[in-house]
Amino acid sequence: MDEKNLDPPPHLETSDQELNLAPQVESAFDAEMWDEVFALTSNIHPADMADIIQQFPPQKRLRLVELLHTTISGEALSFLEESVREQILPLFTSAEVAAAIHELESDDAALILEDLQEDMQREVLEALPLEERISFEKTRSYPEYSAGRLMQREVVLCSPNWTLGQIIDSLEDIEHLPEHFYDVYVVDEDNKPVGEISLSWILRHPRRTQVAKIMNTEVRSVPVNLDQEEVAYIFQRYSLSSMPVIDQEGRIAGMITVDDIIDVIQEEASDDILKLGGVTQETSLYGNIIQASLSRFGWLFISLINCLIASVVIAHFEQALENFVVLAFLMPIVASMGGNAGMQTLTVTVRSLSIYNLRAGHVVSAIKRELSIAALNGLVLALILSSITLLWTGNLKIGIIIGLALLFNVLWSGFAGAFIPYVLHRINLDPAISAGPIMSTTTDVIGFALFLGLATLILL
Amino acid sequence: MDEKNLDPPPHLETSDQELNLAPQVESAFDAEMWDEVFALTSNIHPADMADIIQQFPPQKRLRLVELLHTTISGEALSFLEESVREQILPLFTSAEVAAAIHELESDDAALILEDLQEDMQREVLEALPLEERISFEKTRSYPEYSAGRLMQREVVLCSPNWTLGQIIDSLEDIEHLPEHFYDVYVVDEDNKPVGEISLSWILRHPRRTQVAKIMNTEVRSVPVNLDQEEVAYIFQRYSLSSMPVIDQEGRIAGMITVDDIIDVIQEEASDDILKLGGVTQETSLYGNIIQASLSRFGWLFISLINCLIASVVIAHFEQALENFVVLAFLMPIVASMGGNAGMQTLTVTVRSLSIYNLRAGHVVSAIKRELSIAALNGLVLALILSSITLLWTGNLKIGIIIGLALLFNVLWSGFAGAFIPYVLHRINLDPAISAGPIMSTTTDVIGFALFLGLATLILL
Repeated sequence: MDEKNLDPPPHLETSDQELNLAPQVESAFDAEMWDEVFALTSNIHPADMADIIQQFPPQKRLRLVELLHTTISGEALSFLEESVREQILPLFTSAEVAAAIHELESDDAALILEDLQEDMQREVLEALPLEERISFEKTRSYPEYSAGRLMQREVVLCSPNWTLGQIIDSLEDIEHLPEHFYDVYVVDEDNKPVGEISLSWILRHPRRTQVAKIMNTEVRSVPVNLDQEEVAYIFQRYSLSSMPVIDQEGRIAGMITVDDIIDVIQEEASDDILKLGGVTQETSLYGNIIQASLSRFGWLFISLINCLIASVVIAHFEQALENFVVLAFLMPIVASMGGNAGMQTLTVTVRSLSIYNLRAGHVVSAIKRELSIAALNGLVLALILSSITLLWTGNLKIGIIIGLALLFNVLWSGFAGAFIPYVLHRINLDPAISAGPIMSTTTDVIGFALFLGLATLILL
Repeated sequence: MDEKNLDPPPHLETSDQELNLAPQVESAFDAEMWDEVFALTSNIHPADMADIIQQFPPQKRLRLVELLHTTISGEALSFLEESVREQILPLFTSAEVAAAIHELESDDAALILEDLQEDMQREVLEALPLEERISFEKTRSYPEYSAGRLMQREVVLCSPNWTLGQIIDSLEDIEHLPEHFYDVYVVDEDNKPVGEISLSWILRHPRRTQVAKIMNTEVRSVPVNLDQEEVAYIFQRYSLSSMPVIDQEGRIAGMITVDDIIDVIQEEASDDILKLGGVTQETSLYGNIIQASLSRFGWLFISLINCLIASVVIAHFEQALENFVVLAFLMPIVASMGGNAGMQTLTVTVRSLSIYNLRAGHVVSAIKRELSIAALNGLVLALILSSITLLWTGNLKIGIIIGLALLFNVLWSGFAGAFIPYVLHRINLDPAISAGPIMSTTTDVIGFALFLGLATLILL
């Protein structure tokens, strides 16, 4: 922490500019004003440094990093998005990476180590102290997206028999103190958590107070292999600031702090949003275009198959279309409206699955709820559409046919939108990505088949 | 904090059961085993109490709340979703609500006060100490979703001339200490922030250390009227644990802690997801069905208008459809694929607007990027579709026509998906809700018009 002269209190304008230094740096860089580039990027927060690197166009990014090389801290590297970090890491020597990693907490260090290429990773690991190497190997032994991957190994522990004064004095001796921590965990002889004390509680009680007297015995903990989404749910539900992570034997293995959780929540939400929008894996604005195209092609290709299936269904009703061309004008409506209503239901269900951790008992009530909503909106829309069709075509039968087809398709979409994501969730498929295609294929096929099928039956 | 016997360390199973007590409580409630209901709900975390109340079906919920009445704390009320809180608050007397609010921090107290009906609110306010009443009026004077609404007024302040020992001693005297806090703010004579010290820094330095020597002078703060989404962005970017909120004169008005921010991030993400899925305002699984239907009807009605416009466009090409019925089989493909590609682009852009706070410079590069992706995927899909169409219909011209129409519609969707949300964002409309309808109307109309128009030109 430095002792510079105090800045004036920040205002919206200055903070806004600070949040977006990249354009200024890029102008200076383009004009080859290197001093200006250094001046703009010296003494900035590592997060700001990471932001500048990220916002630079990929083709200029490497040159910028070469230039700023020595001023990029390990912390700045840990703030980068994975795709960008992978791009720039080869510019550093293994000694530089090892030095950068050494200053980080174990969770951030693991992030960077994982993005290194294999031989580089081995070199960096060899340059690290044995203890850090073991810690990394341990972290990597936990499943991806688990509490074990998310946690840092640096924790502050104490015994229930201590006084608060002893905790405070012990902080001077602990070698790897976490940079920020909010709670001290109280453990028994086996290192199993039996309580916790927040720092603000320690500060507001006299030094002689016994830990056991004021500790919170209802300490919540999570096992190392718990999925990060579940961990985030528990943090959020109980407004926690930190939580110990325990191994199979119930001993404390590390700690997760609330700032790690913010990233998890943001990632999981982005994931759901993008997948519902038909985009997989594209979590970065800064990745390359070929990758981005591929990540979207899959869903578009499935949509194309879906459309072709729908076309084949339509072709079955050639006779009806030849006799009544007006059916061709109207038929996209039924399919489209079913798809739209289905997407609404799907979105609500997928979001509920993420936020509320829906369990077995809920699916029946969720389906009832969605069917009721579908029945209400389906009826109103069917009446409106029937009336408009009657006015337009002057054909009462077609008006009734289209209304019925719409109503049934919307009802189907209400049922499917609640049921499909739940089933996918149960069989451990990701509802956000898999439910959309199933939904739109069925609403298209059912929409066209119902409308043209009823028309064939009634009109021909 | 109680001194109960220590529980065994929690495992996944127990925590899973604890997280979902509602079904057990509901069975006991249905069997009228009131003692069991009380046993299950006594000494549980307020968040668990709130969860049980929420998960109860609306028709039984009021009876449950009447039963548990005296055991529902103010904190439990603050954990409830707004729609549920509004439903149950009338069951409490104004004295009860006042007592419940009195134990809460100012931000949570304001949450509950806001959900009261007007005369009840007046009664509760009158029952509160003058100071709390003024604090609430002040909170309400800030714009909705602003930092001022989010913050709590309880903060711990010190002077740069103090020693750490003085801070610690002062904690005993402060009347309204925040229940949890992570940082102490250092202020000048005018109450303007000049630094901050995290509690862990206070604990690891000797009592005689001078505040000015170790404080972090780069304290970030936000103005009271800043939008909560911007506040969340700053928290996340710099991994902050708390941040002071300053008034127009730059004086500290309150503090926002990271646990408030988690809720903001979750809410904003849900908002984006639901709006992209065509659902407005339905943030609750527990609200009633009529409201839920209405919140979805708007988007369905707009979709219906959109479909009807597309139908009118199709009707313009009656001649082509009568001569070549195969056009009717194929025409939904072009419209659909444009819509799907557009939804992908839209989703990525809307998410980027929320996460990265995109600013002017980015839109041009975003459009370039999206057009490149659209060109790549559009070309590949057009080739596939042209070949399939040629094989199916044996008509080369129709194959070329459908390929061209698809390519142009996908290109349009790439441009529009990046441009429309940006423009809406600039004119302060919500891109997540408004961009979808614009996108799908244009891809439908352009899709049908291009395909049938080209067919009319070339085939007739």
